[in-house]
Amino acid sequence: MGYQLVMIRHGESVWNQKNLFTGWTDVDLSETGHKEAAQGGVLLKEAGFSFDVCYTSYLQRAIHTANHVLQELNEEWIPVIKTWKLNERHYGALQGLNKSETAEKYGEAQVKVWRRSFDVQPPALEPTDERNPALQAPYKNVDPKELPLTESLKDTIARVIPFYEENIKKDMLAGKQVLIAAHGNSLRALVKYLDNISENEITELNIPTGVPLVYEFDDNFNVTGHHYLGDQAAIEAKMNAVAKQGAKK
Amino acid sequence: MGYQLVMIRHGESVWNQKNLFTGWTDVDLSETGHKEAAQGGVLLKEAGFSFDVCYTSYLQRAIHTANHVLQELNEEWIPVIKTWKLNERHYGALQGLNKSETAEKYGEAQVKVWRRSFDVQPPALEPTDERNPALQAPYKNVDPKELPLTESLKDTIARVIPFYEENIKKDMLAGKQVLIAAHGNSLRALVKYLDNISENEITELNIPTGVPLVYEFDDNFNVTGHHYLGDQAAIEAKMNAVAKQGAKK
Repeated sequence: MGYQLVMIRHGESVWNQKNLFTGWTDVDLSETGHKEAAQGGVLLKEAGFSFDVCYTSYLQRAIHTANHVLQELNEEWIPVIKTWKLNERHYGALQGLNKSETAEKYGEAQVKVWRRSFDVQPPALEPTDERNPALQAPYKNVDPKELPLTESLKDTIARVIPFYEENIKKDMLAGKQVLIAAHGNSLRALVKYLDNISENEITELNIPTGVPLVYEFDDNFNVTGHHYLGDQAAIEAKMNAVAKQGAKK
Repeated sequence: MGYQLVMIRHGESVWNQKNLFTGWTDVDLSETGHKEAAQGGVLLKEAGFSFDVCYTSYLQRAIHTANHVLQELNEEWIPVIKTWKLNERHYGALQGLNKSETAEKYGEAQVKVWRRSFDVQPPALEPTDERNPALQAPYKNVDPKELPLTESLKDTIARVIPFYEENIKKDMLAGKQVLIAAHGNSLRALVKYLDNISENEITELNIPTGVPLVYEFDDNFNVTGHHYLGDQAAIEAKMNAVAKQGAKK
């Protein structure tokens, strides 16, 4: 029997389109992103999936992805649990900057370090910056000491994994079929943990947008494999497209 | 200081448009209904409302109304608690029938009784009917003995009020600002209870769609008043339009 866990990375956002660093900026999906999310739901429906609970972040691009998927599955009635612990990696002071312009200013190598190193944080926000989550409504009930002003992937992992262990894994062990709709780096954190991927390798792994990723576990909760739903060549192309975003124009 | 509670009835559904008895049939909002819901959110935003938690039903027309309102408020991150206890009144075997045709067949008086009497149930579904909630996925974890095959308004009240007392009121007493996105009859149940309206009067009270209804309470949780947000003449016209649906064409 074993267990299953399904993840989906949100589709293209309006800032992906503009090639801006997004992080915790709460931008919506683009029209393409809305379609990608619905298409992810169609793939899950065609494959016969059904969920008992859905986890997502505090950010609307992930929430809307969850909504689209559940609508396609006719499962909008299930509980959708939102947590900032599944938010995208916080990009610090880079949030809102254009990726190509940042590459021209600081050099491609530095941008690559910020985007793809395991434990180097981008420049931090000033605490007085209005982008500081501690000053924003969704985080008003969170201990400010827990909230980041910037994050490396390592920092993101440090909040995603305990949440997974204490909530998602618990639901799975209770026999619930779980869907996670989240972000490139919060899902990368989980994938690193589940597949025991090295720090070097995980930074090169690109999870395609809007494509359901299914993890399989045995009865002892050991991961036995994973696969993406849908056209495998198209998925490969999507993974490569994400990798190129940090280049100069 | 006191307390506040905001309710919103979902906008027009695709079956309202066709003048069909809907009940627990899970149909979506019409295009007009989507706009009504978003407009309700705009009114709440303009009036400075902000919520800590949202309650809605298992039915997508209410869930989508909640989603639209929260999107307009930039508050999609708050918990949205879904419960079948806030579903529309179950319309039994009338679900799916045209209101005008039913009036021609059984007479307007009989349809009026089914639509507007306090304690007369419409004809019940057969337990083997695929419309029986006990046979449907969203209700699979509910004790079948709790689930209706038909309901009078009295029956609806009997499930709405305990849920309100044990969950919504508890949240309000804990200082949370609560939004309820629900249905004509589940909201009518609550309004009867809050305003202590008689059995005869409540069946004539029409709550307009997509218009935020704000209840005010004093520190001892006594209702001190209520008002609708928005243009009062337009609201009056909406309330009268709902009242006429049961007539022959």
